[in-house]
Amino acid sequence: MTGQLITFEGIDGSGKSTQARMLVERLRAKGHDVIHTREPGGSTGAEEIRALILNGDADRWSAETEILLFTAARRDHLEKTILPAIEAGQIVVCDRFADSTRVYQGATRGDLRSVVDKLHELMIGHEPDLTFIIDMDPEIALNRGLARVGAEERFENMGLAFQETVRHGFLSIAHSAKDRCIIVDGNRTPEQVSAEILAIFEDRA
Amino acid sequence: MTGQLITFEGIDGSGKSTQARMLVERLRAKGHDVIHTREPGGSTGAEEIRALILNGDADRWSAETEILLFTAARRDHLEKTILPAIEAGQIVVCDRFADSTRVYQGATRGDLRSVVDKLHELMIGHEPDLTFIIDMDPEIALNRGLARVGAEERFENMGLAFQETVRHGFLSIAHSAKDRCIIVDGNRTPEQVSAEILAIFEDRA
Repeated sequence: MTGQLITFEGIDGSGKSTQARMLVERLRAKGHDVIHTREPGGSTGAEEIRALILNGDADRWSAETEILLFTAARRDHLEKTILPAIEAGQIVVCDRFADSTRVYQGATRGDLRSVVDKLHELMIGHEPDLTFIIDMDPEIALNRGLARVGAEERFENMGLAFQETVRHGFLSIAHSAKDRCIIVDGNRTPEQVSAEILAIFEDRA
Repeated sequence: MTGQLITFEGIDGSGKSTQARMLVERLRAKGHDVIHTREPGGSTGAEEIRALILNGDADRWSAETEILLFTAARRDHLEKTILPAIEAGQIVVCDRFADSTRVYQGATRGDLRSVVDKLHELMIGHEPDLTFIIDMDPEIALNRGLARVGAEERFENMGLAFQETVRHGFLSIAHSAKDRCIIVDGNRTPEQVSAEILAIFEDRA
C-alpha cells in the first residue's frame, strides 16, 4: 500500500480521537505500517507551538495570530512527520488537520474563512487522501466534552449554539470536498462506528 | 504630532539598534511621547514566539515555518503594542520590522520573497511611516557583529558573502519603497549618524 494521510475531524466530544485510535489499532492488526499523530502538534517544534497556543488565557491571541501559529505548527508537522512517513509508504492517521482550522478559526472567531483558505494555499498546500468527519448530536457531544475537560482544553465558549456552528462548519466542508471527505454517523457504539470506518477505508484502498 | 511608526533596518553590526535608541532619547528630550520597541518581540506574546524562534538549533525550523512564526509575532506586536500607541498619538520607534523578514527569510534562505510578500499583505498589511536603512561596509559590520555575539544570536551563517547579500537586499527595498525608506550612511560616528537621522525626521515631520 502506498503512503497516505487519513484525518479525523468533528466537534469536540464526537469520538473522533477514539475512532482515530481504533483505526490505527485495526490497521496495525492487519499488518499495515501506521503512524498515529494529532494536531496541533505531532512534531517536536509543533508541540512547542501547541503549548504556546493552548496555555495561558484563552483570549491571549487574536484569531489572526492564532491562525498563523496553527499554520506554523502544521507546516512543521507536515515537513517533519507527515510527508517523510508518506514517502516511506506509511499510513498517517491524524486527529484533526486543516479542516479544524477552517471551522474553528475560520468560522467561530469572526468571518476569517477566506484568510484561512489563502494561508493554507500559500503555506501548506497539502490535503488528506481521506477525511472521516464524525457527525454527532451536538448536545450529547457537548456533555461528553464537558465531562472530560482538561487543563489544555478550552470549552469556555462552548455552549450548544457554538457546537451547532462547528457541526455545520464540518458538514459544509464535507459537502464541498466530497472526493476526500466521508461523513460517519457517530451516534452509535464506538465499535459500530469503527467497523464502518474500516470498511470504508478498505473499500477505497 | 500624530502617531507614527519609525523603523530601523540594516545588516547586523550596522549600528541600527544604537541609532534607534539614540533617536528615542533625542525625541524624548524634545518632549515627544515615544515608545521604543523591537522585533521579533515587542509584546508579551511576541516575546514568547521570539524565544521559540531563536532558542535551540539554528535549523530547527524550515524557512517557511520561520516566516510563519515571525509573522505571528509581528501580528501580535502590531495589535498589542504598535497600533494602540499610534492611535494614542505616540511615536513608535522599532528596531527591525517587516523589511528584515523580506531580506533574511525572503532572500537568504531560498527564493521566498514572493511568499513573504503575500503573507505580509494577507496578515499584516501595515507599513512604517518612515524607515531608516543604516548602510554599512559589510566587512566592518561583520566584525562588529562577531564581537558581540550573544546566546540568542545566530551568526553561524554569517560570512562576508552573507552580509553582502543582506546589504543588497536592504538597498533593493530602499530603492523600491522610496516614499518611506531613507538610506543613511553608517560609516561614521554614532553621533554623526544620529544627528542626520534627527534632521531627516524633523524635515519630514
